[in-house]
Amino acid sequence: MLGQAAISLGIECVVFADQQDDATIGIMPALPLSAVGTTDVDVVTFEHELTPLALVETWERGPVPVRPSSSVLALADKARQRERFRSLGLPVPRFAAIDDPDAVGAFAAHAGWPVVVKLAAGGYDGRGVFVVDRKDDLAHLRGYPLVVEELLPIEREVAVVVARRPGGEAVVYPTVETVQRDGMCREVVAPAPVAAGLDEAAQKLGLRIAEAIDAIGVLAIELFVVGGEILINEIAPRVHNSGHFSIEGCETSQFENHLRAVLDLPLGPAHLRAPWSVMVNVTGSVAGDPRDRLPVGLAVGGAHIHLYGKTWRPGRKLGHVTATATSLAAARAQAHAAVNALGGESMDLDDGTGR
Amino acid sequence: MLGQAAISLGIECVVFADQQDDATIGIMPALPLSAVGTTDVDVVTFEHELTPLALVETWERGPVPVRPSSSVLALADKARQRERFRSLGLPVPRFAAIDDPDAVGAFAAHAGWPVVVKLAAGGYDGRGVFVVDRKDDLAHLRGYPLVVEELLPIEREVAVVVARRPGGEAVVYPTVETVQRDGMCREVVAPAPVAAGLDEAAQKLGLRIAEAIDAIGVLAIELFVVGGEILINEIAPRVHNSGHFSIEGCETSQFENHLRAVLDLPLGPAHLRAPWSVMVNVTGSVAGDPRDRLPVGLAVGGAHIHLYGKTWRPGRKLGHVTATATSLAAARAQAHAAVNALGGESMDLDDGTGR
Repeated sequence: MLGQAAISLGIECVVFADQQDDATIGIMPALPLSAVGTTDVDVVTFEHELTPLALVETWERGPVPVRPSSSVLALADKARQRERFRSLGLPVPRFAAIDDPDAVGAFAAHAGWPVVVKLAAGGYDGRGVFVVDRKDDLAHLRGYPLVVEELLPIEREVAVVVARRPGGEAVVYPTVETVQRDGMCREVVAPAPVAAGLDEAAQKLGLRIAEAIDAIGVLAIELFVVGGEILINEIAPRVHNSGHFSIEGCETSQFENHLRAVLDLPLGPAHLRAPWSVMVNVTGSVAGDPRDRLPVGLAVGGAHIHLYGKTWRPGRKLGHVTATATSLAAARAQAHAAVNALGGESMDLDDGTGR
Repeated sequence: MLGQAAISLGIECVVFADQQDDATIGIMPALPLSAVGTTDVDVVTFEHELTPLALVETWERGPVPVRPSSSVLALADKARQRERFRSLGLPVPRFAAIDDPDAVGAFAAHAGWPVVVKLAAGGYDGRGVFVVDRKDDLAHLRGYPLVVEELLPIEREVAVVVARRPGGEAVVYPTVETVQRDGMCREVVAPAPVAAGLDEAAQKLGLRIAEAIDAIGVLAIELFVVGGEILINEIAPRVHNSGHFSIEGCETSQFENHLRAVLDLPLGPAHLRAPWSVMVNVTGSVAGDPRDRLPVGLAVGGAHIHLYGKTWRPGRKLGHVTATATSLAAARAQAHAAVNALGGESMDLDDGTGR
């Protein structure tokens, strides 16, 4: 989707990836990561926080700017991230960074069981996150840096996406609600249907974080709403699932603004283009490859289908659908109908959550 | 832009072009036209009416569907087109198809001087169209099939874009006004600010033409408004400049609907996403290559810039800008400001036409 946005601005992209399947549909053949330093480009960026930190540090020693910087990427480590935000006085859940699962008990003794234990590095889409009770065996977590946190009574999860240029110019997207299932984002509702003031508080916090860590490019900030207040869940220094709705939902997409930001070009406005946008991920299900069901998916009017050309595998994110409408109910209905038609394992609209 | 739209749907494109500069930014390397028959694809389409008719007829003798068909492409010939529409009882200017410029005088004797003389084949963007008076020397037109027409008191020019599937399912885009200068489209306003009823009449005529000639894919229909009535100017069997605004201005772009139509997939809705959209072409000017002025162009907020990656040449269409807004004045101002910033030879907003 970054490559797609680049076309409009006449920006030429060179894709680096060590697995061709990482490399977007085969529209752009990928060079190996080792070729980054040998290629004549204006700027190097990345779109996954699992990009090896040491590699990014190597690139930074070369003549080409790397945006965001390795110091921002380093915050993909959940322990470092939490500690940084706590030291900045920003709202985070009660936590401890630990090197040994035996230390979980000591934390839980004052925070109360159960607690949440996370791998500090390497997890995403809910992988590496465990709700842990007193009797659980944590042997499988031995040897990994961990974060242990209080289990919060989360009312909802929201997110903001910020795009920021080297000079500090920044735009923030409207606060969205992210609906998770099994730790993976399933649905994004824009704008987040939250109490007045909370959306601005989240946007303000997002801008503050981006400035504090000197993030360049797009930075996504995932937040918990607890007792009507926001707490930082985690950040991701890249274009993010919670911003995919912006392709149709906002005046400038997160993808175009990421390109503009890392190339130090003026940013585009991030305001909504429709009263409501709903994005639903298309994940692999037993129904088979959504590409084979495209005719059925397209027959559902009013939904924008994005398929990533990735190999089908159950549970894998293979695409997303965005619908915009003048009512939330209509946007949700259209987006879910299209995802269902694609066989993309949509959640049940009447799943008892009252949503 | 077709390739860009294909990415979202996971549709893989193979580009055929005999000149690399024809072939879109180098994002997709092109194969020669002679390779069309040797490549495993589901459908062959084209996006220029100067695609050689004989070549398209050759492709049609192969096993892969060619959409639109050669019989639709054949109507790119202005004489054949006019004759076909007249025989269908559709509204066209008074005309005669002639093989010799000496026949112009006979036509003008009853239509009145001056008249319009057009090359039947090969012209576009105003090339090959001449307003001719009694004393003009027409020797340079000898040897070409020509169309001679009455010179009409044109109030405005409007256009509609139709997308149509093999089974006959069709959608029509809102009627737009196209503002020409030197025969080249400079600005498109959507919806066309015309008297009530005229927009529906144009849409209805567009659908009727598409059905009558069995057009598959996108068909653009350019119309003259004369005395409050519409007359067919010309059709183009391809995605068209008068539909570029649909990328941001409509629920489904003409590019996505062309792909859907030629692949016989359900079409997407074509309704407007904003009260007003204005598209302005970026043409090469002495100010230099718009790519070099991208930072200045992007600094104009609220305009969507599309640069085609084509080599700069004065007068050549190098891209376009679309702005959407709640007022026509705001959309026009934003689009023209961005084109001016890009050095794209915008027209003067106060050019005395009262627009």
